Amino acid sequence: MNSVTIPKATVARLPLYLHALEILAAEGTCTVSSEMLARRVNVNAAKVRKDLSFLGTHGVRGVGYDSSELGTRIREALGLTRDFGVVIVGIGNLGAALANYDGFGEQRFHIVGLYDADPGTIGSKVGDLVVRDVRHMPADIAENNVEIGIIATPAAVAQEVATQLEQCGVRSILNFAQTVLQVEQADVRRVDLSTELQILGYYLRHDQS
Amino acid sequence: MNSVTIPKATVARLPLYLHALEILAAEGTCTVSSEMLARRVNVNAAKVRKDLSFLGTHGVRGVGYDSSELGTRIREALGLTRDFGVVIVGIGNLGAALANYDGFGEQRFHIVGLYDADPGTIGSKVGDLVVRDVRHMPADIAENNVEIGIIATPAAVAQEVATQLEQCGVRSILNFAQTVLQVEQADVRRVDLSTELQILGYYLRHDQS
Repeated sequence: MNSVTIPKATVARLPLYLHALEILAAEGTCTVSSEMLARRVNVNAAKVRKDLSFLGTHGVRGVGYDSSELGTRIREALGLTRDFGVVIVGIGNLGAALANYDGFGEQRFHIVGLYDADPGTIGSKVGDLVVRDVRHMPADIAENNVEIGIIATPAAVAQEVATQLEQCGVRSILNFAQTVLQVEQADVRRVDLSTELQILGYYLRHDQS
Repeated sequence: MNSVTIPKATVARLPLYLHALEILAAEGTCTVSSEMLARRVNVNAAKVRKDLSFLGTHGVRGVGYDSSELGTRIREALGLTRDFGVVIVGIGNLGAALANYDGFGEQRFHIVGLYDADPGTIGSKVGDLVVRDVRHMPADIAENNVEIGIIATPAAVAQEVATQLEQCGVRSILNFAQTVLQVEQADVRRVDLSTELQILGYYLRHDQS
């Protein structure tokens, strides 16, 4: 199963299915239909079934999927069965919020380093970690198994940080800075927090909420 | 055109198209093809054309869409041509980061109130606003035109805040707390910041980055 290449669009939906499963589980649901998942992820049920078939899992007609088994399959596909080392660069409010974010640890993302360039921030404690001078970052990354770098710096320095992360061997970058990054090989995802507000805006305007 | 109901899945993709257009514009692109948008939003080109047809806009075969015009159409559909009043409840690191987030103002989302229950936080200044006691929130909302509430509180109090926002007439809620909210009528979107890390995790595991 691991050798199957899952289409990009399906990969992007897997965390949404997992999230929907967690909500449904919190509501006490043990078996989910493709229609239930479809409604929460905003795709049609046929697409849900197609997506989940890439995991080698098929629901029982008229019954659905076992929630717990499906959750395990999605976690396996997403690699959430092993640990990832993560560093956060830029420990302003957003960086500190991300460092304290409960959801990461649950998902086996382990924050192993926090970095900033501001002497007023370096040395302060956020959660269990002390913020280190960004100049130590290359040596730290070489020592630890860091695969993901989160950029939460001002836009003006984000490119410099991205280049450095990539030179240190970090293969995946999550960019919260309001800028477009140029990288050689790394996989970059940009998070624009205003996306969700824009979706809410549509429904407000059209009075459908 | 305003009377056309756009499918939910299309609405959810409109901000992604807008975001892709902004990136392409920053790279100096004036005309975009459905394939260029498709690649950046991870859907197929036929779906892009279908989605954009709901806006009453059609690309020129072999040429594509005028970036600037398409951007205007999407902004109109999302209601980004008028202003929305937003309050943020819970001014810890995440709430403060959201209050300072550059992207909101550009998109016509105006933060008009910041609230917290902690006496140590009430009265502190974040950006241009002073954090107020959450007990003043109902009166403030009644006075101002607040349509969107952002919840950035600890999970334990998020439900209470959501109920209060809804009772005050707030119609849309963006929930950053790690919990599922029960509401009567309001439109709720939950933001799980670990979703993007999970997607990166897939590519790290499958060595495709």
